[in-house]
Amino acid sequence: MTGMDAGGILLTDLYQLTMLQAYWTRGMVGTAVFEFFVRKLPLGRNFLVAAGLEQALDYLEQARFSKAELDWLAGCGRFRREFVDSLAQWRFAGDVDALPEGTICFADEPLLRVVAPLPQAQLVESRLINLLQFQTMVASKAARCTLAAEGRMLVDFGLRRAHGAEAGLLSARAAYVAGFTGTATVLAGLRWDIPLFGTMAHSYVQAHERETDAFEHFARCHPGGTTLLIDTYDTEAAAQDVVALARRLRADGIPIQAVRLDSGDLADHARRVRAILDGGGMQEVRIFASGNLDEYRLRDLVRGGAPIDGFGVGTRMNTSADHPYLDCAYKLEEYDSLPRRKRSEGKATWPGRKQVWRRLDASGHPDGDTLGLEGGEGTGEPLLRPVMRAGRRIGPSPALSVVREHAAAELARLPETLRALDPAPRPYAVEVSAALQDMAHAVDASHVLQRSPR
Amino acid sequence: MTGMDAGGILLTDLYQLTMLQAYWTRGMVGTAVFEFFVRKLPLGRNFLVAAGLEQALDYLEQARFSKAELDWLAGCGRFRREFVDSLAQWRFAGDVDALPEGTICFADEPLLRVVAPLPQAQLVESRLINLLQFQTMVASKAARCTLAAEGRMLVDFGLRRAHGAEAGLLSARAAYVAGFTGTATVLAGLRWDIPLFGTMAHSYVQAHERETDAFEHFARCHPGGTTLLIDTYDTEAAAQDVVALARRLRADGIPIQAVRLDSGDLADHARRVRAILDGGGMQEVRIFASGNLDEYRLRDLVRGGAPIDGFGVGTRMNTSADHPYLDCAYKLEEYDSLPRRKRSEGKATWPGRKQVWRRLDASGHPDGDTLGLEGGEGTGEPLLRPVMRAGRRIGPSPALSVVREHAAAELARLPETLRALDPAPRPYAVEVSAALQDMAHAVDASHVLQRSPR
Repeated sequence: MTGMDAGGILLTDLYQLTMLQAYWTRGMVGTAVFEFFVRKLPLGRNFLVAAGLEQALDYLEQARFSKAELDWLAGCGRFRREFVDSLAQWRFAGDVDALPEGTICFADEPLLRVVAPLPQAQLVESRLINLLQFQTMVASKAARCTLAAEGRMLVDFGLRRAHGAEAGLLSARAAYVAGFTGTATVLAGLRWDIPLFGTMAHSYVQAHERETDAFEHFARCHPGGTTLLIDTYDTEAAAQDVVALARRLRADGIPIQAVRLDSGDLADHARRVRAILDGGGMQEVRIFASGNLDEYRLRDLVRGGAPIDGFGVGTRMNTSADHPYLDCAYKLEEYDSLPRRKRSEGKATWPGRKQVWRRLDASGHPDGDTLGLEGGEGTGEPLLRPVMRAGRRIGPSPALSVVREHAAAELARLPETLRALDPAPRPYAVEVSAALQDMAHAVDASHVLQRSPR
Repeated sequence: MTGMDAGGILLTDLYQLTMLQAYWTRGMVGTAVFEFFVRKLPLGRNFLVAAGLEQALDYLEQARFSKAELDWLAGCGRFRREFVDSLAQWRFAGDVDALPEGTICFADEPLLRVVAPLPQAQLVESRLINLLQFQTMVASKAARCTLAAEGRMLVDFGLRRAHGAEAGLLSARAAYVAGFTGTATVLAGLRWDIPLFGTMAHSYVQAHERETDAFEHFARCHPGGTTLLIDTYDTEAAAQDVVALARRLRADGIPIQAVRLDSGDLADHARRVRAILDGGGMQEVRIFASGNLDEYRLRDLVRGGAPIDGFGVGTRMNTSADHPYLDCAYKLEEYDSLPRRKRSEGKATWPGRKQVWRRLDASGHPDGDTLGLEGGEGTGEPLLRPVMRAGRRIGPSPALSVVREHAAAELARLPETLRALDPAPRPYAVEVSAALQDMAHAVDASHVLQRSPR
C-alpha cells in the first residue's frame, strides 16, 4: 500500500493547500529545509526504532494531483483557478536524508530531512508525519515485546483492532522490523514476504458439535501441522482430547504442532496443559498463548517460567496502547539559506540542517549522541544518510529482511539499562553541539531585532 | 475509501483462510449467525456511539478475490488448488441487521449481526471488526468532546498522528458523526462533503522575515477571511500586530476572522489576546485554540470561562488516546439452527440471534435496555434494523448529515448522568431477558452432555 492507493494527495490538511496558494501568489519558491523528529520519548520509554521510511519515499515519488482532484479543488470555492492549474505540475523533486529503518533513535534527533522548494516540502507534511510516526511508534513498542520475549516466537495478531486498513498492514511490517517472527495478516505476507501464522477461531470449534471433531477435521485438512485452539469450553479437558487425538493422528503421520491458549491465567493453564501433554507423551506439542499481551505481560510470563513457546501479540502492540501516539513534528529549520526557529512555549525547535553522530564505548555499545549541524564537528558515526535526490531514490531500498537484521543488531548493542522495560536510571545522552546552540541564539537575536523597529 | 482500495480481501487473518479450507473440505456451509459487540465499555465511559456501518456494508458488497490474489494463494504452499479455485466464486450473499450509525449503545449489545453460510460469515470477520471498532471508538470519544465543548466549534485536526491513511480519513468521518463541525482533512471533504477548516502552519510564519508580513500576505491572498496562527514567537505581541493589521485590511474590505493559539496556557493566552483584540476594537475577531486537547481539557477551558470560540482537536481524539481500542468481538452465536456459546474464562458470550429493546422514561430519556432473542419479548424500541439482504443493501444508506442528526438526537436525550464525562453513579441498565438466559443454560448443558460420553 502506497500513499497513493491509500487516499491520494488530498489526504492532507487544508492548510497545506491554502499556504501553497499564498506561496504561489508571492512567488515563494526558495529552498526549504524541514526535519521530522520526536520532541519527547513517551514516558518510561528508553529509545525509539525508526520505521516507515520506505512508505514515505513511495509517497514522495508518487505524489501528484489527478485531474479529478484538480477539478474538485477548482470547484470547491476556496482556490483560484490559476493556482489550481499550477498544481497539475506539482511534483516532489527534493532531497531526503534519513535514518535507515531499524535504527535506534532518541528525542530531538531528526529521523528524516527534506530539502526542497518550499511548496514541495510543505505540501507533504501531513502524510509524511502520518506515515513516519505510526510505524516508528509501533516498531518501538514491538521492540520492547521482542526484548521481553527473550527469544520466544512472537506473532502479530493485531489486524482486527488496528486503526483501519493501513494501520493493520503497516503494523505487521513494523512489528516484523522490530523482531517479530511473523504476522497473521495475509496481505503482509503477500506484500513483503513476512512469514504468516494462523491457528483457528473459537467459531471454528463452536461450529462443530464436538470440540474434538473440530480438532480432528482441522488437523486432517492441514496435514502439514496445525495449532489447535483449546480454550473454547474447558482448557484442560481439551488438552486431554488433544493427547488422544495426537496419538490417533500420529499413526497417519499427521502432527499436531501446538495448542493455543487465549483466556484465563495463561501461566497456570500453560503449566497444567504442559503436564497433560507431557504425561500423554506429547512433549513435541508446543504451547502458544495470546490474549491482551504486551511487553509487561510477556516479561512476567517469561520470567515466571511459564512453559509457553510462542505468543500472539495484538491490540496492545499494534495500537501502542499505553502511548498511542508520539509527540512528533515536521518543522521548518531553514528557508532561503537562513536558519529558522519556532519558539512556541514548550515546542521550541533547533534550527538549521542537522546531523546526528553516535559514539560507541570500548565494548561497542552506544555511549552518547551529538545533535549538530550537518558538515559540522560531531565525532562518531553520522546516522542520517542520503536516500533521495531530486525526487528519486538513491538506489534500491534495502530488503525488509535487511532492515530487520539492522534493527536486531541495533537492539543487541544497546546498553542493558536501555534494553530494560523500566526507565533507565539515566536517559541516553543526546548533547547539542556548541555550534547548533550558537545558531539557535543567533536566530533568536535576529527575531528580537526584527520586532524592535515596530 | 472502501475495503477494496484499502487492501483487498487478503487484508484478513490467515486463520480465516485455513478455516475456510477446512469448511470446504467438510462441506460445512450451514447458516451461521455472528454478532459484533463490545464486551466491556472502556473504564470510565458511560456509552458508545455506533459508527462504521457504511464502510462495513461497502466491504461486504465488494469483497471478492482477484485473479492475482488467487494465484498468490495457490502458490503460497498452504492451500489446495481446488479450494483456491473455489474462492473465485466467493461472494458475501448474506443478511445483515445493525444499529443505525450514530445510535448510542452499551456493552454486550450487538452493533451488527451477520446471517450467512458459514464460509461467507467467517471470512469477513477480521475486516468487519477492523472497520466497526475503529469508527465506533472514535465516534464515542468525539461525542465526549462534543458534550464537553457545550456548543463551541470543534474541528478535527488529527490526520497527522492518526494510525495511517484510513484512520486519518475515517476518524474525520466518525468525529463529524459525533458532532464535530468539520475537519482539516481535505479528502474527507471530497468524499463526504464534511466542512473543511484550516489555518496556517508555523512554517508559514517562519518562512517570512517578519511575522506580520506573513499575516498580511496570507490575509490578502485569502480575502474571504482567514485565521492567523499567533504563537510562533510571542503570542501577545503577535496579537497586537493583528490589531494593527486588521485596521489596515478593514480599509480594503478584508476581514481577519480569527487568531489561533497552539501552545502554552491556552486559557491565560486567550484572556490576554481577547483583551488586546477588544482593546483594539477587534471584538469580531474570534479566538481558536488547539494543542493536546481532549474532552477533559475542553471541559476545563469551557467551564473556566476561557474566551475561546472554537477548538482544533486532534491526536487524543483520533487515537482515542486514553482507550485506543475497544474490547470487542465478532462471535458465532448460532450454526445450523443450533445456538452456540463460547465459555472461555472472562469471555463467555450470549448465544442466539439477539435484539436490543430500549425503554424511554416519561421525559423521553432512555431508561434501560433489554438484550433478548430476536422475535422475543422485549418492550420498547427494537434497535437492530435490517440493512442488507442476500448481500445487497436494503435501500440507499442515509446521508452523513442524517447520521449526524441522529447522533445529536441520541446524545440530546441521554440522561445527564450518562452525558457527564465522569462515570455515572450507576451504569446504564442492560438486562438480559429470561429467555436468553434460559438458552445460555441450555447450551451449556448440551456441552456437558457432549463431553460426558468421552
